[in-house]
Amino acid sequence: MSRTGADRLCEALLKLGVDTCFSNPGTSEMHFVAALDRRPEMRYVPGLFEGVVTGAADGYGRMTDRPAATLLHLGPGLANGLANLHNARRAATPVINIVGEHSTEHLPLDAPLTSDIESLARPMSSFVRRMERAEHIEADVAAAWSAAMTGVVSTLILPADLSWAESKAPADVEIPAVPTPSSVDEDLLSRVVAALKDRGGKVGFVLSGLALREAALADAGRIAAQTGARFFAQGSNGRMERGRGRVAIEKLSYQAAPGRAQLAGLEIIVLIGAAEPVTFFGYPTGSGRLAPCEAAIIDLAGPQHDLAAILARIADLAGARSLPPQPLASMAAPAVPDSSSVDRLTVRAINHAIADRLPENAIVCDEVISSAGFYDLSHEAAPHDYLQLTGGAIGIGIPLATGAAIACPDRKIVALQADGSGMYTLQGLWTQAREGLDVVTIIFANHSYAILHGEMRKLGVEEARRNVGRMLDLDAPRLDWVRLAAGMGVPAGRATTVSRFWHLLDDALRQRGPYLIEASLA
Amino acid sequence: MSRTGADRLCEALLKLGVDTCFSNPGTSEMHFVAALDRRPEMRYVPGLFEGVVTGAADGYGRMTDRPAATLLHLGPGLANGLANLHNARRAATPVINIVGEHSTEHLPLDAPLTSDIESLARPMSSFVRRMERAEHIEADVAAAWSAAMTGVVSTLILPADLSWAESKAPADVEIPAVPTPSSVDEDLLSRVVAALKDRGGKVGFVLSGLALREAALADAGRIAAQTGARFFAQGSNGRMERGRGRVAIEKLSYQAAPGRAQLAGLEIIVLIGAAEPVTFFGYPTGSGRLAPCEAAIIDLAGPQHDLAAILARIADLAGARSLPPQPLASMAAPAVPDSSSVDRLTVRAINHAIADRLPENAIVCDEVISSAGFYDLSHEAAPHDYLQLTGGAIGIGIPLATGAAIACPDRKIVALQADGSGMYTLQGLWTQAREGLDVVTIIFANHSYAILHGEMRKLGVEEARRNVGRMLDLDAPRLDWVRLAAGMGVPAGRATTVSRFWHLLDDALRQRGPYLIEASLA
Repeated sequence: MSRTGADRLCEALLKLGVDTCFSNPGTSEMHFVAALDRRPEMRYVPGLFEGVVTGAADGYGRMTDRPAATLLHLGPGLANGLANLHNARRAATPVINIVGEHSTEHLPLDAPLTSDIESLARPMSSFVRRMERAEHIEADVAAAWSAAMTGVVSTLILPADLSWAESKAPADVEIPAVPTPSSVDEDLLSRVVAALKDRGGKVGFVLSGLALREAALADAGRIAAQTGARFFAQGSNGRMERGRGRVAIEKLSYQAAPGRAQLAGLEIIVLIGAAEPVTFFGYPTGSGRLAPCEAAIIDLAGPQHDLAAILARIADLAGARSLPPQPLASMAAPAVPDSSSVDRLTVRAINHAIADRLPENAIVCDEVISSAGFYDLSHEAAPHDYLQLTGGAIGIGIPLATGAAIACPDRKIVALQADGSGMYTLQGLWTQAREGLDVVTIIFANHSYAILHGEMRKLGVEEARRNVGRMLDLDAPRLDWVRLAAGMGVPAGRATTVSRFWHLLDDALRQRGPYLIEASLA
Repeated sequence: MSRTGADRLCEALLKLGVDTCFSNPGTSEMHFVAALDRRPEMRYVPGLFEGVVTGAADGYGRMTDRPAATLLHLGPGLANGLANLHNARRAATPVINIVGEHSTEHLPLDAPLTSDIESLARPMSSFVRRMERAEHIEADVAAAWSAAMTGVVSTLILPADLSWAESKAPADVEIPAVPTPSSVDEDLLSRVVAALKDRGGKVGFVLSGLALREAALADAGRIAAQTGARFFAQGSNGRMERGRGRVAIEKLSYQAAPGRAQLAGLEIIVLIGAAEPVTFFGYPTGSGRLAPCEAAIIDLAGPQHDLAAILARIADLAGARSLPPQPLASMAAPAVPDSSSVDRLTVRAINHAIADRLPENAIVCDEVISSAGFYDLSHEAAPHDYLQLTGGAIGIGIPLATGAAIACPDRKIVALQADGSGMYTLQGLWTQAREGLDVVTIIFANHSYAILHGEMRKLGVEEARRNVGRMLDLDAPRLDWVRLAAGMGVPAGRATTVSRFWHLLDDALRQRGPYLIEASLA
């Protein structure tokens, strides 16, 4: 049977276990769409904007530890997806982008949609390849997959003529082995273990990536129990396993003063899957480094390593194997919201309710940037996965929840969503309705870019003049999230009091399917 | 008085006449925001997503022929705006992007929001400069402005430390002259004029850019009257002046068969501000060139030239100066929709109503891709400006209308908007509500990516299987544009019949301020 290049690409993806494709296609991808039509075992999930597509692929990859495919329409389609690919890159999420491109003959004609796709792709993709020969399609897909499986974004550029080329007997795809993790540097490891035995209380670990799963955290808790070492999670992480019965861990702040206070007194800082601790932004007042100047920073392992195995080895070498893990965060019971104003809806009251009611095995996607809150209130919530905005490119929350729901159809997704960032990719609500995804989205509606008001105050601009108000407030008119959600087929309700919020939350958690709660904060 | 770099940047823009800033800022741009706050003569227009910001800057630039500024937040903020910058590039619209960047000291720390901004900017910006020294701020802005004024997108990357650096006596900005248009190649011009005299009926012109303004079109009509030459507008154009009393011009098709038919028999094709005519996409069936193989293509002038002056010279040299211009399009009265089914809403019926009721001096922004229609029905509509999707990157319509309304507050804006592309940047409706812009948006709601259904049929995929339906339909659930608009503060109504549509249209045109009509087509 004769098959097109697009058929072979689709089959190669399926053989590698890539069976989910998030997409917003265009004309140049119609052969790929036709190929998907012939292979219904490839689950196709449409998004009405490419930021939804790539953010959903990120959520899917975070929950499955393997890549979904995206299908994007030339340079502009890729461009629309880049912000969430930036977040995927920072989360070390495996993703395979298929970017349609003009046919080889058409490209030099500089038709209106032509642009430099490689230049657009490279900043967010560790692997970029323009597919050039039909006989290499399977090898190209395998290479993109092998790269993605090391925790990176791969981008394949697919010219239309490769997509429509027919061949009778294409090469079988050689299924590459799952990449072997890199070996840890034994000298560095010895140095860390020696320091732990010698002055454990002066050693701090910063964990991210797969080091934040349940078993790895348990080993971290054992090491802490044995040596007195401190452990922190990176400020933002792709996925953390947490909640009741798991080892809670403190997150590092991205702010200068609290971040420095957390690391104060440490002499050695060991990175396991994490980046060197720095502030999110630079300020005129000094360096963005958070570690004490005199501390040694040991970059022990990155996403290419087996982070859980490394923590297990350290636990063994430190003689901590048989110890019960100790918590790595303060487990003081968080204060319940003040009962005197109990019906006034606050960020804290919302987060308290969610932590209290969180269903077992839920997945929490958190894009409430201006006021964290949920994390510290939920160490003892039901066991759950916790997914964050990793790269600071706002607009990840709704797509992330969408992709996580596709990856884990039997689990409840709870999306904590700021209003300003929610507007970036609100189109993802339609995909949730379309696919009947079990997502409860909670909009923290403060009607402003609250975080920027704070930054302006830091600059000493106290008196907001006309322009500043216009820039940072989302009021006048207020966004009506109940209508926005309904416009995309997602039922929704608004809460302006705590009691109403609990009521809506309980209703939403009880049913299956998408629901949105606008929690109006002022 | 001590001023920050951001103050100086803002002042330099104002001195150059750049007094409008479309923006979605972040922390790294707070000093610029503070500078804007001190200079209220800079009009600040917020967008809730960067695709709105850049598309509005495009609309503003098309209507004023001078650049607005955008203010974007690092690489991801720029990335979100790239698709509409791609359209601006294809429309030869002047735009100046200010992209915030980490401070020079913070950049090497690879904080989460760090990315390669130059690599992202270059594909859509002809001018890219990273600002490196505070003393060069004014010169950098002037260089970006000079480039933009030749009809290109300029991007300035503004590190935070330049933004916050204080200086007492900054250099005055030297206001550069408006760039002088390039000289036309006299040999080419002579060749064109000779051909017109010798075999005028075999000469075809393709016009775009400033060659599509009223006076230039009149000269084209004179040349045609004198020589029998054919004239076409490029398939998509940034702005055309048209309607009653102006010279109507036929647009070239981007489709192979009709495009070739339009150019058949021509021996010389002269490009004035236009690109060589090609199909929008390549197909397996042959070349994407539309001109006859044997035709000579003369690229006489681009956006860097004075296109109107060149047409005037050709008219003089061809001895056509004193002739009355002839229409360059078939002016047969378009058929009125069939009265037997007069209340069934069709694309044609909608466009007929709009052409009939269009207010004098309106601005029409057209992003109804799947079924053109309006253009051919409106040669005799009231005089208006006509703005199109130029680069094929969908999601321009709502932002374009927003920017045009800011540029021309006394004119009615009518946005013709397909539903699929409208969802890309629907956030622009909020800006329209916020600023009280006089925009009537008409959603052509066919509930599918209709254009892609057509492309699939070309591939012979007749029987839509499960995946194809899932990919190309926007049904299940249907988008409810009345609710979406209301959610952003824009009043709206739905028409499912012709009579209802006329009623809503008349109401919307009578009042001032934003209004949206969902014209539901099935």
